[in-house]
Amino acid sequence: MTGSGPGSPLGLHRVLDPAGVLPQAAWRLDASPAEVCRIVAERGKMQNPVTGSGGMLTGVVEESGPGSPLGLAPGDRIATLVSLSLTPLVITDGLTGWDGRSEQVPCRGHAILFGRSIATVLPADLPGPLALAVLDVCGAPALTGRVVSQAAGRAGGSAPVVAVLGAAGKSGSLSTVAARRAGAGRVIGVVPSEAEAATLRAAGLADEVVIADARDPVALAAAVHGAGGPAAVTVVCVDVPGCEGGAVLATADGGTVIFFSMATSFTAAALGAEGAAADVTMLIGNGYVPGHARLALDLVRCEPGVRGLFEARVSEDARDGKVEA
Amino acid sequence: MTGSGPGSPLGLHRVLDPAGVLPQAAWRLDASPAEVCRIVAERGKMQNPVTGSGGMLTGVVEESGPGSPLGLAPGDRIATLVSLSLTPLVITDGLTGWDGRSEQVPCRGHAILFGRSIATVLPADLPGPLALAVLDVCGAPALTGRVVSQAAGRAGGSAPVVAVLGAAGKSGSLSTVAARRAGAGRVIGVVPSEAEAATLRAAGLADEVVIADARDPVALAAAVHGAGGPAAVTVVCVDVPGCEGGAVLATADGGTVIFFSMATSFTAAALGAEGAAADVTMLIGNGYVPGHARLALDLVRCEPGVRGLFEARVSEDARDGKVEA
Repeated sequence: MTGSGPGSPLGLHRVLDPAGVLPQAAWRLDASPAEVCRIVAERGKMQNPVTGSGGMLTGVVEESGPGSPLGLAPGDRIATLVSLSLTPLVITDGLTGWDGRSEQVPCRGHAILFGRSIATVLPADLPGPLALAVLDVCGAPALTGRVVSQAAGRAGGSAPVVAVLGAAGKSGSLSTVAARRAGAGRVIGVVPSEAEAATLRAAGLADEVVIADARDPVALAAAVHGAGGPAAVTVVCVDVPGCEGGAVLATADGGTVIFFSMATSFTAAALGAEGAAADVTMLIGNGYVPGHARLALDLVRCEPGVRGLFEARVSEDARDGKVEA
Repeated sequence: MTGSGPGSPLGLHRVLDPAGVLPQAAWRLDASPAEVCRIVAERGKMQNPVTGSGGMLTGVVEESGPGSPLGLAPGDRIATLVSLSLTPLVITDGLTGWDGRSEQVPCRGHAILFGRSIATVLPADLPGPLALAVLDVCGAPALTGRVVSQAAGRAGGSAPVVAVLGAAGKSGSLSTVAARRAGAGRVIGVVPSEAEAATLRAAGLADEVVIADARDPVALAAAVHGAGGPAAVTVVCVDVPGCEGGAVLATADGGTVIFFSMATSFTAAALGAEGAAADVTMLIGNGYVPGHARLALDLVRCEPGVRGLFEARVSEDARDGKVEA
């Protein structure tokens, strides 16, 4: 791992093509010196060609540039909190240590962090794969907490109803407990199947657990309304296309929808709300909120229900060989 | 024009395929009885295959369903305020009255409005094409005004800086004056060329007019910073892809970006902000805000600069034959 060297804190000096864009929008980054693998070989970064997202990495700091604002020292075990889709990346072992199936990909190589490529030292008290899984989605609980807390402040006494779509997943379960801690009066967890409902009920995270297909707007809205909705805040953590309309219909007038799913269609959300004359605020889920890593790790430390759910997901992913972008 | 008949106020009964989705997400709507044209023939609605949006219509109310909440009477000259991408539509004259080039398409036919398909009676004091052009973008000034007013309330005394990208355009010019009226301390109008800068300066809408390519993040951020930025609120009214990164960099930490452009990429916005560790709130521009039509029409009535700009755009569009989705 190499720390940020001289150049732009945004990493503009590492953009090869097209000139002048930011690293995330770039087709190709300069990750030299390099012998690289698959997409990383071609593009100097990791970026899922379908979703446009890239995942994150953990590693050991090799060198920190003079005057680096990141506060990292050689030898620190860290996780990056920005997408691999903007991080110059080199893989030197041909991924020979990877079975090609597990979500986390062990490899040798180096990455280069810019002055604004925030990273965090891995906590000593949590297993590495667990911490990595938590940090990968840490923006969701932080932004959810902020929005619910603002809604609670506006509500003038009555604590807001919050619906979390995909509440048994990683970003969903963290967002569920973050909503509760931020002052939600009732948290409705929406899941697609009886199996996930059982998991979520056992974890004890939500006040109500309902089963609905988030792609079916009428069924979703009916489920949320039936469980005490409409929601003042609806949080979309379901990574399938077509959830925009249902999320809007599940939300009260004057309420807010936060879209964390990378499968969200900007046009479908904008026209869906307009077409239903729905006065809802719709947020693009920004993965960065100050303090997000610490908040998410604290939630996992203090909430046995979330921790159990994450541990199950991490070992499930390793067993099933899911690869996440 | 036919008013809303019995059935779902969202128009679910008019969805043919796929079953169960909202009209905007539908592939095909029931617009019978019908003899239709081009896309309208195939899909029972108008929807631009590239942008997914559909435009709007004006017409005369033929019939109003019993108990319709729209408050319209037969003979009313109205404009719909929801997208044609969700409105059952029939064209009966084969578009013989259209030259195939102008932005506004004269035709005979009928459309069906649902209980939540809001529409407004056309004002008697403004020419039809002008009113139509204003109503087509009326969501932008309403949401901009709301967000700027909230920012002004939070700022604790200091009036917020607002940057409008594409400030000489239709939604951009309305958003610029809406921002000023909502309490902006300084409005920076960003345009792509010297010609547009001259137009915007002559209209007298913005405090500062700067020229920058909104697709060039570094140039855009430098231009906005140089004109008194960063912005507390950045409004994106430029309908070209690739403006997400620049909009984020032009915005102050804790600020808000409102994306009105249908060319916005959800992923590019989400990952762009995260990658730059930018703590900005990003809004999907909802075309519906209560009172939006009246507000936009009032702005055009009271602000000669905006009215002049709109009149020029309307005749320009008719002359150049631009077709808008």
